[in-house]
Amino acid sequence: MNRNYLLQVIICLVVVGLTACGGNKAEEQTTQKGGMSLMESLQKRHSVRAFSQKQVPDSMLMDLLWAANGVNRPDGKRTAPSAINAQDIDLYVGKADGCYHYVPADKKLVKVNGKDMRPIVAMQNNYVITAPVVVLLVSDLSKFSKHPERAENFADMDAGYVSQNIYLYCTSVGLGTVADAPDLKSTDIIKFLGLPASNIPVMVHPVGYPAE
Amino acid sequence: MNRNYLLQVIICLVVVGLTACGGNKAEEQTTQKGGMSLMESLQKRHSVRAFSQKQVPDSMLMDLLWAANGVNRPDGKRTAPSAINAQDIDLYVGKADGCYHYVPADKKLVKVNGKDMRPIVAMQNNYVITAPVVVLLVSDLSKFSKHPERAENFADMDAGYVSQNIYLYCTSVGLGTVADAPDLKSTDIIKFLGLPASNIPVMVHPVGYPAE
Repeated sequence: MNRNYLLQVIICLVVVGLTACGGNKAEEQTTQKGGMSLMESLQKRHSVRAFSQKQVPDSMLMDLLWAANGVNRPDGKRTAPSAINAQDIDLYVGKADGCYHYVPADKKLVKVNGKDMRPIVAMQNNYVITAPVVVLLVSDLSKFSKHPERAENFADMDAGYVSQNIYLYCTSVGLGTVADAPDLKSTDIIKFLGLPASNIPVMVHPVGYPAE
Repeated sequence: MNRNYLLQVIICLVVVGLTACGGNKAEEQTTQKGGMSLMESLQKRHSVRAFSQKQVPDSMLMDLLWAANGVNRPDGKRTAPSAINAQDIDLYVGKADGCYHYVPADKKLVKVNGKDMRPIVAMQNNYVITAPVVVLLVSDLSKFSKHPERAENFADMDAGYVSQNIYLYCTSVGLGTVADAPDLKSTDIIKFLGLPASNIPVMVHPVGYPAE
């Protein structure tokens, strides 16, 4: 083996080695693969009730909604499980300029109205009004029509799954959030959103950058 | 520069490059920081109902329990939130050799009895019996004594949080699991575990490596 050939082989090894390292890092930055590890997200998860006025970028909001209850398989199943795979939880987003419904199959938001939902879902929690975004979790109980005696149990469990996804996503990107679960059934929210009688609001997640 | 010196420099570069790559991999295996990203865990989360007989290593089981509902802060708060921070969810582990209670503050398991819990919590789901480990989520409703009208709602939500942590941890390490939520209140489990009347079993998670 001559000297030049040996050198070329070794240089190739160096390049391949460093490319492999660099490749891993690049992959970690893609939208739905990279970012904070699950275990670090769990280590850092906590509730935040004071928000800065810095806006949440639209791309981050869309990732949050996907993480919360997005489609993660070709058959339409979700990041969050649901009892009897009912997929009963719908997400509504409230911002200063209006209220939107998340459509998981299309990964997009559809405007419901141009009003500010935040004061209505805040109840006694004023910090909800100060968050730039609120996410409302609504369960469609009609999807449990074969198990009416357990419909509300399932709705609450399913909201818990989605809510933990919201907590963990927010933790992983430096956003703050808290889950509020006041009794929302008799509030004006149902009228505000024009929901059918089978739909019940279960939880509210104000979301924003933590106040410094 | 002579040939030997040049070769040594290049070999050093190769070794440093490969060590850096290996170092990243090693770091990814540390208990509470490394491993799969949150977003990849969400992308891959799904339910598994067929298990191989390969045992789940003890260290992995302890990480699973920490991820599910472990202490993540000096003040004793948890990876999973709970309504009014009641920390109502207790975890019981069933294996062939006995049944254990997870103590989050000590990150350890305390033996409850030497019996196999799996056939009792399986109900009609035979795959539960075939999993090497089952994790039972029990809510202590007495922790909601100031909100008795909402105690079961809170228990169900809180179980959802813990259950999603179990799903995501299992996904991140190649284990399979599914959440089963049959109506467990009237079963023999309460007697089997010697639970006080205020404690209700809410969910069962069989855990194991997926069958090939």
